[in-house]
Amino acid sequence: MSEVAIGIDVGGTKALALVATPTGDVVDELRSSTPQDATGGAGVATAQVLAEQVSTLCARHGLDASTVPIGIGMPGLIRRDGHLAEAANLRAASGASFPDLLHDLLGAQHVYMENDGNCAALGEHAWGAARGVDDFVMVTLGTGIGGGIVSNGVLMRGQNGFGGEIGHMVVQARGAQCGCGGFGCWERYASGGGLARLTAEWANEGRLPELSARSGGAQHVRGEDVTRAASEGSLEALALIDDVAWWLARGLANLVAILDAGRFVIGGGLSVAADLLLPRARVHLEELTFGYDKREAITLTPSGLTVHAGALGAAKVAFDRVS
Amino acid sequence: MSEVAIGIDVGGTKALALVATPTGDVVDELRSSTPQDATGGAGVATAQVLAEQVSTLCARHGLDASTVPIGIGMPGLIRRDGHLAEAANLRAASGASFPDLLHDLLGAQHVYMENDGNCAALGEHAWGAARGVDDFVMVTLGTGIGGGIVSNGVLMRGQNGFGGEIGHMVVQARGAQCGCGGFGCWERYASGGGLARLTAEWANEGRLPELSARSGGAQHVRGEDVTRAASEGSLEALALIDDVAWWLARGLANLVAILDAGRFVIGGGLSVAADLLLPRARVHLEELTFGYDKREAITLTPSGLTVHAGALGAAKVAFDRVS
Repeated sequence: MSEVAIGIDVGGTKALALVATPTGDVVDELRSSTPQDATGGAGVATAQVLAEQVSTLCARHGLDASTVPIGIGMPGLIRRDGHLAEAANLRAASGASFPDLLHDLLGAQHVYMENDGNCAALGEHAWGAARGVDDFVMVTLGTGIGGGIVSNGVLMRGQNGFGGEIGHMVVQARGAQCGCGGFGCWERYASGGGLARLTAEWANEGRLPELSARSGGAQHVRGEDVTRAASEGSLEALALIDDVAWWLARGLANLVAILDAGRFVIGGGLSVAADLLLPRARVHLEELTFGYDKREAITLTPSGLTVHAGALGAAKVAFDRVS
Repeated sequence: MSEVAIGIDVGGTKALALVATPTGDVVDELRSSTPQDATGGAGVATAQVLAEQVSTLCARHGLDASTVPIGIGMPGLIRRDGHLAEAANLRAASGASFPDLLHDLLGAQHVYMENDGNCAALGEHAWGAARGVDDFVMVTLGTGIGGGIVSNGVLMRGQNGFGGEIGHMVVQARGAQCGCGGFGCWERYASGGGLARLTAEWANEGRLPELSARSGGAQHVRGEDVTRAASEGSLEALALIDDVAWWLARGLANLVAILDAGRFVIGGGLSVAADLLLPRARVHLEELTFGYDKREAITLTPSGLTVHAGALGAAKVAFDRVS
């Protein structure tokens, strides 16, 4: 096994790159903004940012970019061969092959791609909240909802390698429009984007009077305002967080019905609201799960790797592929 | 392996028992009504019906009820140990242990239980439409929707053995009430019960004028009338079947997003409408699936074992457990 690997978690607005050891320690890390344009072709501008991150980390730690294992986690549909087939939140990169692009830019020979939710699942399984747990569902609450399903210790990849796109499970047929082109996807209700959408809806309906007054008008209330006010005890903000928790539980209960999942690890950017969100989601899960009292306890556990989950999981992918 | 096994498919209104060979041939079969009352305790009345079926089949074929392998498929939540934890459509049997009951009644020593959707999946995998296919989802459209998920050739049972209860995936949050106590379950839209419900809704809204006139009033139009009229080319009936097909596709698209499932086998009582329903469901699946054009073809295949799928699958369970 290599002594270290580089893992990169690429999101819609920024990329987190880190150097990891085979035991999941983070040696170094750096963040960059991800480009929104597709100058030079699909993924080229993004690949240049990633190449710069790899070069910087290699220079700092005496690594050779051509030989170090590099794992990249990205949102969207990633084929088993590493090709990014579709990325709703990363349009500039849709259709690109990052192993090829990084080979051209850096001579990198060991670049492996995996969906970011799957990366988080692999990271938590190896070194985080699901260590030693061979059946669980990773749920990442960010702008959208990502996920990864581990069954019998193995990531469920499915026919094309696209398994675990749980955020695009529709929970409200013909509901709110989603970036994927569909309507009523779970991520439009229970993610950071869902919180933002519900915040606007509630503010417009006059259900957030205090926050609207404080923000200078209903149209100025943002999701972060709600999270902050809720942690300060605002009842209207807590009611909205409870609604998001209800929607979170609604989707989780579906996964319980389908998979008989007993354990969920909840991560992603919105997990800062874990102290408020998860306790309420547990209450709603009990109401909403088919045959709840006939089942073993269902656990919702916050991510153990927090902001590093995706990038560490990407490094794990790289370790596994070169070993 | 035993020379034959008995498989019984127990539904809310009738039970189909058959004698099967290890190659999936049906030697004999018989049908009985299932009792709706819980006289004598949970499952006792039901077990008496099943015991009579077993006795009759044993007498006809010179089998010994105490030694012949017996598999029983039932709707609801069945624990890995064979205990029926909950059966929404078979209330009289909820909480019963049929292996114990049949042991008391017949001295039967080899009685194995499995969820009916899981049985259908195992039957189709062994001898039906999914022969040689190691990744597929069985969908049984009856009064409700049952299912079974086969991944890498193995039935996905989950934490308690309750996996594959896809009919209780909610596709319309806070939607139509379901027998499970929930609201908006898939089976309230895309099963025989869903067809009946939508028929009543459409008739009440005046959207089935021809059928209402022919049936002597909107309140008399039934799901069977719609199926028949649709097969005769009635446009209003075809429109309603198309709506059911849309809902069917809506749930299937969710399973594609979650599991990256590429193959569905569609069975159950409503599969008589397969000629009308499946072609329309295929069209809607293309509209509704996230990243449809990025995936390999997704196939919807009618059941190969049709009415025998559940009972043959139950026999397969019995063969597997005694071998």
